[in-house]
Amino acid sequence: MSETRGRIAYITHRAVFSAAHRLYRDDLSPEANQSIFGKCATPFGHGHNYDLEVTLKGPVSPESGMVMGLAELEAIVDREVISKFDHRNLNRDVEAMAGINPTAEHLVRVIWKQLEPALPAGLLHNVSCRETPNNRSHFKGEH
Amino acid sequence: MSETRGRIAYITHRAVFSAAHRLYRDDLSPEANQSIFGKCATPFGHGHNYDLEVTLKGPVSPESGMVMGLAELEAIVDREVISKFDHRNLNRDVEAMAGINPTAEHLVRVIWKQLEPALPAGLLHNVSCRETPNNRSHFKGEH
Amino acid sequence: MSETRGRIAYITHRAVFSAAHRLYRDDLSPEANQSIFGKCATPFGHGHNYDLEVTLKGPVSPESGMVMGLAELEAIVDREVISKFDHRNLNRDVEAMAGINPTAEHLVRVIWKQLEPALPAGLLHNVSCRETPNNRSHFKGEH
Amino acid sequence: MSETRGRIAYITHRAVFSAAHRLYRDDLSPEANQSIFGKCATPFGHGHNYDLEVTLKGPVSPESGMVMGLAELEAIVDREVISKFDHRNLNRDVEAMAGINPTAEHLVRVIWKQLEPALPAGLLHNVSCRETPNNRSHFKGEH
Amino acid sequence: MSETRGRIAYITHRAVFSAAHRLYRDDLSPEANQSIFGKCATPFGHGHNYDLEVTLKGPVSPESGMVMGLAELEAIVDREVISKFDHRNLNRDVEAMAGINPTAEHLVRVIWKQLEPALPAGLLHNVSCRETPNNRSHFKGEH
Amino acid sequence: MSETRGRIAYITHRAVFSAAHRLYRDDLSPEANQSIFGKCATPFGHGHNYDLEVTLKGPVSPESGMVMGLAELEAIVDREVISKFDHRNLNRDVEAMAGINPTAEHLVRVIWKQLEPALPAGLLHNVSCRETPNNRSHFKGEH
Repeated sequence: MSETRGRIAYITHRAVFSAAHRLYRDDLSPEANQSIFGKCATPFGHGHNYDLEVTLKGPVSPESGMVMGLAELEAIVDREVISKFDHRNLNRDVEAMAGINPTAEHLVRVIWKQLEPALPAGLLHNVSCRETPNNRSHFKGEH
Repeated sequence: MSETRGRIAYITHRAVFSAAHRLYRDDLSPEANQSIFGKCATPFGHGHNYDLEVTLKGPVSPESGMVMGLAELEAIVDREVISKFDHRNLNRDVEAMAGINPTAEHLVRVIWKQLEPALPAGLLHNVSCRETPNNRSHFKGEH
Repeated sequence: MSETRGRIAYITHRAVFSAAHRLYRDDLSPEANQSIFGKCATPFGHGHNYDLEVTLKGPVSPESGMVMGLAELEAIVDREVISKFDHRNLNRDVEAMAGINPTAEHLVRVIWKQLEPALPAGLLHNVSCRETPNNRSHFKGEH
Repeated sequence: MSETRGRIAYITHRAVFSAAHRLYRDDLSPEANQSIFGKCATPFGHGHNYDLEVTLKGPVSPESGMVMGLAELEAIVDREVISKFDHRNLNRDVEAMAGINPTAEHLVRVIWKQLEPALPAGLLHNVSCRETPNNRSHFKGEH
Repeated sequence: MSETRGRIAYITHRAVFSAAHRLYRDDLSPEANQSIFGKCATPFGHGHNYDLEVTLKGPVSPESGMVMGLAELEAIVDREVISKFDHRNLNRDVEAMAGINPTAEHLVRVIWKQLEPALPAGLLHNVSCRETPNNRSHFKGEH
Repeated sequence: MSETRGRIAYITHRAVFSAAHRLYRDDLSPEANQSIFGKCATPFGHGHNYDLEVTLKGPVSPESGMVMGLAELEAIVDREVISKFDHRNLNRDVEAMAGINPTAEHLVRVIWKQLEPALPAGLLHNVSCRETPNNRSHFKGEH
């Protein structure tokens, strides 16, 4: 299938992790936190099943017929994200989130930073995370 | 539709709440807790989107054509469960869970106890809760 | 697999139809209708994608290894339900619903009555219909 | 997390509304309508659970760590769309659809027009609506 | 929570495996196979993502607050089913299916037989498997 | 709605087909195949429910209010893809896949080539296929 050589395709790997979090800034008053973060600022936290999708974009290898092996991609996502975020408290247990308010927007940016150096250069295209059935965030590395 | 009078039907209302929890017993050693609860015993907790289904079974009213009005059922579930469990820590914020290890099995039993006195007698049939995409628990009031 | 001969299994066929409906009783005042049916009584109706599941329970045939051929079951559901309910107004277009207030509970009862005579005797076990992501009804033929 | 300042992220809010509709043009003959719109032209209409996704794209605020508060976004979508479209007939009850044939493509365009003036300038990125499990439409404001 | 002691609850574990299969009986003619199994008899087979749900029913242990540890249940399902059925051809690679026509009904019966001896006596309650978005089978051990 | 004339919208049609496949290259040794394709190289193949989404992008016709009739799009996808891929073995039964290793990336490229000549010029925008709940591929015609 010589015409496929070099054609661009996208692959997406999905994985779910379960974590607690609380939206709060120590440098603001409790009232200001309540005003900005509402019920997400509850003192002892709440939690979600984070439904993560990692998308790569790149040329299809003529040898493998793949952008990247899905088993290899899964192993990287497991090692860099799931093993560090699953069954954890995002405010207290996750080194990559230290000092970062775990909003949906910050989370996908941090996961992007975890994954990018572990992947072949230029392949990472989108990190999307569904927090609840009714909200999702995305990060594409854009400034 | 006289033949429908008195026929038995089932209705199910679904609602999602997001909560943190930790599986742990204070009367056991950390090692025993780790042995029984594994990663669910992580000190600072984790969390889920709990996908709750409440099923009623009962005769269809000839006046309304319903077992119970779905808006009324939704209001009861919101008042008795969602307003008390959503965006909370099940170990620390939820009065109905006080002193109860928040396993999936205990959770549906507690929700049953919250709902039963608020519903017309004998209608509650099943309380089911999906903790993650891969596990669910049910309680039907059986001894 | 002689031990399978006569063992009981269940099969479920799912199909989706899109229909308009309005909950209303002509023999009641507009105020009474509003009180019982709320926003479901809006004059010009609203609609749903009804997600139907039909479950059969019966012995597994030693010849086919099936309770009933799934293609045959699908054909019966298409002919008796989908072709008559899909892209219709349940209050005005569906003969089997004539004079029946199209509540979720009545709907599954009517669909049961459509299907039962078209299926081998005794096989129909459950008719379940999801009206919205948050509510479902079931009918099992119980008195 | 100074490096997040100004980085672009996307957030998506999902909401479901149930509505009736009929595809029909009064300026065409019944035959022409049938030819163009097929079963969607049935006289008394049909309906769907419209599964709406509204996506914003914009810089992440260093104060909140958000593009926009999800509770605020939800309130706007509820006020501008859900409260006006849910449990309505799109051909007869919805002012924003007056004189507009309620195709999937027109619907997302109209919802875009409802939302854009209610949101901070430039944030609205995509309006997507799933009519049935098997079809969806999108509008991104493109000419 | 002494009142929970001995109360009956249900837990369900879900797992997905991807397999090829073909419905065919060597003791019948090609025409008879085509007549019974239709497109499922295509010579080189087809395949599915089998979405398996295993449900246990039993008393909640006062020590663990569980019917059985979900991690333990997952390990048993992985060892007895997933490791043997996933990425396999059900007609040729799976010892437990040898000589058995892989219909949806036979499949859940065979999976029941794989799991029952590996689980504490009396706990296994239901094995359900979704072959496609539109069909599922169940087995409850009934004669 | 004159302002809709010529505005760009997107429509997506979804369809599912069930097929067997095996990832393997005859010009490589069994060991090399195992190294590249892992469990996907199992000799007798495995299978999936391929969840296909075909997205068109184009101007909304002022006559129909549509980019293209959804019934017409469905008929094209059925004729060009589903009727040829469903209940088939991708390595052996599908002419369009002859000589092509059926990776997720190749599959969406081949489906693009099937659909493009059957659609009005320039409308095809994205072909996406979910192989399992945890992986998907896309092709947008990019070089």
